[in-house]
Amino acid sequence: MQEMHGMRYAPVGRSAPVVEPGAFTFAAVGLYHGHIRGMCNGLIEAGARLKWAYDPNPAYLDDFCKQFPNVQRARSEDEVLSDPSVRLIAGADETHLRCALGLRVIDAGKDYFTDKAPLISLEQLEAARAACARTGRKYAVYYSERVHVETAVFAGQLIADGAIGRVLQVIALGPHNLSPAMRPKWFFEKAKYGGILCDIGSHNVEQILYYTGAKDGTVVSSQIANYNHPEYPELDDFGDATLALDNGATGYFRVDWFTPAGLKRAFGDGRVFILGTDGYIEQRKYINIGTEDGPGQLYLVNQDQQVHYDVHNKVGYPFFGQLILDCLNRTENAMTQDHAFKAAELSIKAQMQATTLYPKES
Amino acid sequence: MQEMHGMRYAPVGRSAPVVEPGAFTFAAVGLYHGHIRGMCNGLIEAGARLKWAYDPNPAYLDDFCKQFPNVQRARSEDEVLSDPSVRLIAGADETHLRCALGLRVIDAGKDYFTDKAPLISLEQLEAARAACARTGRKYAVYYSERVHVETAVFAGQLIADGAIGRVLQVIALGPHNLSPAMRPKWFFEKAKYGGILCDIGSHNVEQILYYTGAKDGTVVSSQIANYNHPEYPELDDFGDATLALDNGATGYFRVDWFTPAGLKRAFGDGRVFILGTDGYIEQRKYINIGTEDGPGQLYLVNQDQQVHYDVHNKVGYPFFGQLILDCLNRTENAMTQDHAFKAAELSIKAQMQATTLYPKES
Repeated sequence: MQEMHGMRYAPVGRSAPVVEPGAFTFAAVGLYHGHIRGMCNGLIEAGARLKWAYDPNPAYLDDFCKQFPNVQRARSEDEVLSDPSVRLIAGADETHLRCALGLRVIDAGKDYFTDKAPLISLEQLEAARAACARTGRKYAVYYSERVHVETAVFAGQLIADGAIGRVLQVIALGPHNLSPAMRPKWFFEKAKYGGILCDIGSHNVEQILYYTGAKDGTVVSSQIANYNHPEYPELDDFGDATLALDNGATGYFRVDWFTPAGLKRAFGDGRVFILGTDGYIEQRKYINIGTEDGPGQLYLVNQDQQVHYDVHNKVGYPFFGQLILDCLNRTENAMTQDHAFKAAELSIKAQMQATTLYPKES
Repeated sequence: MQEMHGMRYAPVGRSAPVVEPGAFTFAAVGLYHGHIRGMCNGLIEAGARLKWAYDPNPAYLDDFCKQFPNVQRARSEDEVLSDPSVRLIAGADETHLRCALGLRVIDAGKDYFTDKAPLISLEQLEAARAACARTGRKYAVYYSERVHVETAVFAGQLIADGAIGRVLQVIALGPHNLSPAMRPKWFFEKAKYGGILCDIGSHNVEQILYYTGAKDGTVVSSQIANYNHPEYPELDDFGDATLALDNGATGYFRVDWFTPAGLKRAFGDGRVFILGTDGYIEQRKYINIGTEDGPGQLYLVNQDQQVHYDVHNKVGYPFFGQLILDCLNRTENAMTQDHAFKAAELSIKAQMQATTLYPKES
């Protein structure tokens, strides 16, 4: 199931519980971004019990409780954080507030699962890293464009199977639909949303790190622009960056708010090209333009073959079950903490180092 | 008509003469690269008469004369250059020799039409620019991946018609098939082929300049690698670069020699994505992977619609007729000299400034 707007993108998968009913309880706090629904769907399908919901904005809370009718409406964040049965807090607060929520969650002795972008400054990153190091708690991140997209999951499986040899480069294109009338005021304030390379870009950085298998990297170059939205002077409507990874591979990504109305069935024509020594993969994640195909189209060309896979409703989203088990067993199979933070770090650095293409600074 | 290997890519179009028979005579000198066949096809289809052919390598000359049976086999370059009926010399010599040939052609009072890359150093560029400025002769370039590709021509027409608004960014992906056994020794010597960003990359730089409508630009970053061909230590098997254009638009391109065998029907999965304020265009130039489509597939998504165009054998190659008329009328409708040189300049600079990703320098 998909909707037009990225902010409401909330995949629904199949139920595949990894734990007995009641064995893993979580809560949702910070309900601004529609991603919270995808985060909760994923965890519930994997067997988690959603006990509480809370947001200081009653409208967000009402809306959320309608969609998850079995959830208890908390009267305060404290009511949730002080419940010892809750192991994990999922949150999709305003971007600039996600770190502070995470620190409160970790201080309460729980694991945190935040919408991306998880962090918008190096200071926030340092605080989050320190909290995790001190407590052993998790600051997990919903990099949905990989963990909640079936082509993205399948691409990782193909690479692990050696389908394209050693990965040399990843190109990730992340166009999005702005729909400004649906966005709150803070969404256009750079100190709050973090800039396009930090915000949307964190998806792409994470994918580059994941598919190349790199542990670290540097931002070779990065650019931002506000090409066509002078009414929102702090909006970056375009950004791109090149990364050089510690293993010699490289990555390029572009993010923008220029999805045209004719795209219709998707919030953006998200594509990922993964080049290996022995082949390449193209993901057409949400739409295969000019066709009637649904989401989940993946193309593999290697030394032996050229294949079009339709993986919609076939691959599922193993991340969520892995995350639950990681919380229970203190393992890191869903995603390592280092990886989650490294993607944030490089996104923040790309944003900080970006040159402005347009409007030209006088 | 296409063949597997880029070096033999020689499109055949329809005959559309722009001049009376015999009104425009040219010759082919420097026959190394199969591109010479495409260059001659294009000019002949546009009404030009191919009078002479010459190459110091008799094998190249034999091969060429078989394909163009009406051509006269010259005994020396001088025999061609001293023929006053010849107005234009088309050449696809070894890359490092193309400038010297051009200077001799221009000194002989004729226009020059060279395969890309036209130049491999700033010194060559300066000499060519000076020769053109001094004589008014042309140093025209066969940037075939735009001028001899129907989706590329059609994309230009769509943009001129306003189909995607103002162009903000171009991403050009140019994977190629190495087929090392078919390549001469000099092809793997960097001082002779010029490096991948200068060589293949010149196609992509030209497209970025053309579609953005920019007159100038800077190389923001560029990278090269030899990821998987240690037997050819001077080969760049990968390169990419980001350009910032003088009008605020930007461009990214990747070139590589990693076309896998499974691609079969094309030398590479050449793609161009052109992002505008009101839509985008994707070119799938030579193959539409996972389908039975032929070459020439273009996708347009804008505010109104989402369309798949099959333009194979529908658009043609107006560049060649325009070039003939430009030579006769001393106009610049096919391509301005400034544009041809600027694409070369930025390609050379991208190569000169490139950092090496792999193998890592110790």
